[in-house]
Amino acid sequence: RVFKLLVLPGDGIGPEIIRETLRVIDWARNAGLRIELSEGLAGGASIDIAGAPMAEDVVQQALASDAVLFGAVGGPKWDHLPRAQRPEMGILRLRQALDLYANLRPAVCFDELLDASALKPELIRGLDILIVREATAGVYFSLPRANEVAPDGQRRAYDTQAYTEAEIARVCRTAFELARTRQRRVCSVDKANVMETGALWRAVATEVAADYPDVELSHMYADNCAMQLVRRPDQFDVIVTDNLFGDILSDAAAALTGSLGLLPSASLSGLGQGGRSRGLYEPIHGSAPDIAGQGVANPIATILSFALCLRWSFDRADLADRLERAVRHVVYSGVRTPDIAHAGIAAVSTIEMTDAVLTALDAQ
Amino acid sequence: RVFKLLVLPGDGIGPEIIRETLRVIDWARNAGLRIELSEGLAGGASIDIAGAPMAEDVVQQALASDAVLFGAVGGPKWDHLPRAQRPEMGILRLRQALDLYANLRPAVCFDELLDASALKPELIRGLDILIVREATAGVYFSLPRANEVAPDGQRRAYDTQAYTEAEIARVCRTAFELARTRQRRVCSVDKANVMETGALWRAVATEVAADYPDVELSHMYADNCAMQLVRRPDQFDVIVTDNLFGDILSDAAAALTGSLGLLPSASLSGLGQGGRSRGLYEPIHGSAPDIAGQGVANPIATILSFALCLRWSFDRADLADRLERAVRHVVYSGVRTPDIAHAGIAAVSTIEMTDAVLTALDAQ
Ligand SMILES: CC(C)[C@H](C(=O)O)[C@@H](O)C(=O)O
Ligand SMILES: CC(C)[C@H](C(=O)O)[C@@H](O)C(=O)O
Repeated sequence: RVFKLLVLPGDGIGPEIIRETLRVIDWARNAGLRIELSEGLAGGASIDIAGAPMAEDVVQQALASDAVLFGAVGGPKWDHLPRAQRPEMGILRLRQALDLYANLRPAVCFDELLDASALKPELIRGLDILIVREATAGVYFSLPRANEVAPDGQRRAYDTQAYTEAEIARVCRTAFELARTRQRRVCSVDKANVMETGALWRAVATEVAADYPDVELSHMYADNCAMQLVRRPDQFDVIVTDNLFGDILSDAAAALTGSLGLLPSASLSGLGQGGRSRGLYEPIHGSAPDIAGQGVANPIATILSFALCLRWSFDRADLADRLERAVRHVVYSGVRTPDIAHAGIAAVSTIEMTDAVLTALDAQ
Repeated sequence: RVFKLLVLPGDGIGPEIIRETLRVIDWARNAGLRIELSEGLAGGASIDIAGAPMAEDVVQQALASDAVLFGAVGGPKWDHLPRAQRPEMGILRLRQALDLYANLRPAVCFDELLDASALKPELIRGLDILIVREATAGVYFSLPRANEVAPDGQRRAYDTQAYTEAEIARVCRTAFELARTRQRRVCSVDKANVMETGALWRAVATEVAADYPDVELSHMYADNCAMQLVRRPDQFDVIVTDNLFGDILSDAAAALTGSLGLLPSASLSGLGQGGRSRGLYEPIHGSAPDIAGQGVANPIATILSFALCLRWSFDRADLADRLERAVRHVVYSGVRTPDIAHAGIAAVSTIEMTDAVLTALDAQ
């Protein structure tokens, strides 16, 4: 079967890191992956040319694809725009249109970069947490929501956080399925002590767990989870939580690792037949306008995002494994772009970093 | 003027740490503080005797007081109760009844306890962040909210997050006022890129800032704030944010310090005349049922909560300063309850720790 991959470079360093990842995609093709590639506009680049952060024909193209590889969007040029027209809205639009309800955020520590973490090395060595964040419902999308002027002339704004049991159950299933490929422990995070949606979340997670007797389920309040992530991050295997808590906790977890610039993410619409899903893959870092165009951006997070794509959308766990191994080898052997270079060590460029990964792949 | 203080010991270690703090309150009286003391039931203790986590007459008593000193509530005995009847609801009820809209959560590092932090010492030495959390509105209290069964038989839950400009403005004012006693920097945290309430929050914070030209205002998204707290906590002076983000971020910040068992908190209804406010003061740690009744609980967080009470409700910054100095002296001189004892050092009891604080006060 020939898979379809849509590539959306976006803004800032997006085009540079995507360009290098395309070389890795070529490697995968040479290794037997059969894909059809197309490219589209997203974010500020799309605003400038098509007048919106995500044009409808790009959404259609994404719907006709098996996977989307996303660079990064945003920059000072578009910061003044009202929220609905800003670059980030493109990604929210895609999450919803493609029903990418499970946002997977691995927080993995590259032990060679332990120095870069704010945490003591003994707390994060070997750290490997997978946060599964619900990404198409909750306060990000629920209605009603408004910013209005009340009869007394005072402004008042409100948002709605809503969840159905089906929305909770499916993302919990994804978390349990993934836990089976790991340490078989799921920690479900909510504010059941304060929120109605939290109470339903906890109830449904517990129900879903009945289908996974081999996986251990625990519950934690979101405030306590933030605390525990800092105090003893290695207690977690898989964390499953709602859209807003997931946004915050996954960034906290990523920061812990000290490997921020290297972390990929995947947004899936479930692990369906043969564990394959439509997916959107993107680095967790931003568009870094300050270093855009200088050829020094780190392509690793995007390359690892493509590895996740191989694993979850293209049914090629074998190639994903090889690619992840090659990246680890390169990072561990000391090849470093400026963002992760130790003082006194010469940093390489975006292109040279990719060269190193390709060389490591060849040498396998 | 004679101030009124209501003491609510609560559950678990609550009664022990409050009992010791009463000895410190006696010291303050001997030092000239004129107060009238009363005591009431809260949490599980109240559920057992009065049938609810906070009886109406206790609320009335609190309303007639200048300040409330709260121990801790909750325990396995009451874990099975439905949310509305649980121990924690008592504190939410008080926050709202007393209009304690500004929850102050200092995240201060005791440098002698640097070892206990998960973070590298150089990142948190001298850390002193003040989180001002809105505590009487937002998703904790807004309506409508429900957990219901939709016509199709599916369960659906929803919560509402609502804020008026007045609710945002007053807590921002508190943050700016407090920033003036510190480094004059306020970071306002929201999800203005995703939420309507976030957009209003940002707008109102910016408007309030106009009245404080001597204080620097910055804005940050909540996910980025979680990340920055881990990466470079010393960039913050005062953080002001909504009820839910404040709940999560203040716990993350507290965890960073490694001084979790020592941190106090205050809930104020604004800094009014002469900077004095009605307030509720409580340690940030919980009721620790596992060590309750053993006489080993650390009373420091409660004692420091009383110091905040002296400062903000009783107009006695002088006594607050003395008390805080005495506590620092004791902790720095190595007197430790088990929770903060180094391996190989004999730990003291709750009573002995208080003895040490009183001795340090006498020696001043
Ligand atoms: C860009 C923004 C809307 C987005 C979010 O809040 O979901 C981002 O923070 C993320 O986590 O992907
Ligand atoms: C006990 C609970 C309702 C409370 C909250 O969520 O506000 C607690 O976590 C806190 O921060 O005081």
